[in-house]
Amino acid sequence: MGTSTEHIVHPEREQLELGAVLHALSDPVRLQIVAELARGEVECTCGSFALPVTKSTCTHHFKVLRAAGVIRQRLEGTTRLSTLRRDDLEQRFPGLLDSILGASA
Amino acid sequence: MGTSTEHIVHPEREQLELGAVLHALSDPVRLQIVAELARGEVECTCGSFALPVTKSTCTHHFKVLRAAGVIRQRLEGTTRLSTLRRDDLEQRFPGLLDSILGASA
Repeated sequence: MGTSTEHIVHPEREQLELGAVLHALSDPVRLQIVAELARGEVECTCGSFALPVTKSTCTHHFKVLRAAGVIRQRLEGTTRLSTLRRDDLEQRFPGLLDSILGASA
Repeated sequence: MGTSTEHIVHPEREQLELGAVLHALSDPVRLQIVAELARGEVECTCGSFALPVTKSTCTHHFKVLRAAGVIRQRLEGTTRLSTLRRDDLEQRFPGLLDSILGASA
């Protein structure tokens, strides 16, 4: 456990589904996470965010975002670092992320 | 019953919430309804659509779309006619509907 060889599953770009992405972004907490990732463009951990939820709920939200292909996670030691899959989203659904981030600002 | 005085509640433009709109559009059947309304720009009834669901499920989907402010419904006799609230959506969330419709095409 806790090594970088643990397998974290991500859908390929071609597998991204619009419905799953919209569902992932329909939750205010998940949208806040994505907005912060978009602003920072850095790798973040769950603990980086001032979110009004418990750690386990936070972990759940990150999992939904990852399963939908909105974020990519990698392990560094025991820490999961998350980044926004901006390029993949833009290629699959042009303009979508920006319109959603703009609307949520 | 069945008169045009029956009250159908719609959120005002200012009340439209991004999360509710994204949730409403995250379902493939609802997205199909919205895409058909967008193409036709006409008033449609539930029965106008070749949807792979029962009538009661269809009614439910229209209700979710109406509650989120995506469509407007009015009664004509006993028929509910639906239109897309394209202008309201565009004003509140510029570019959002087009990017979603483009991605779903």
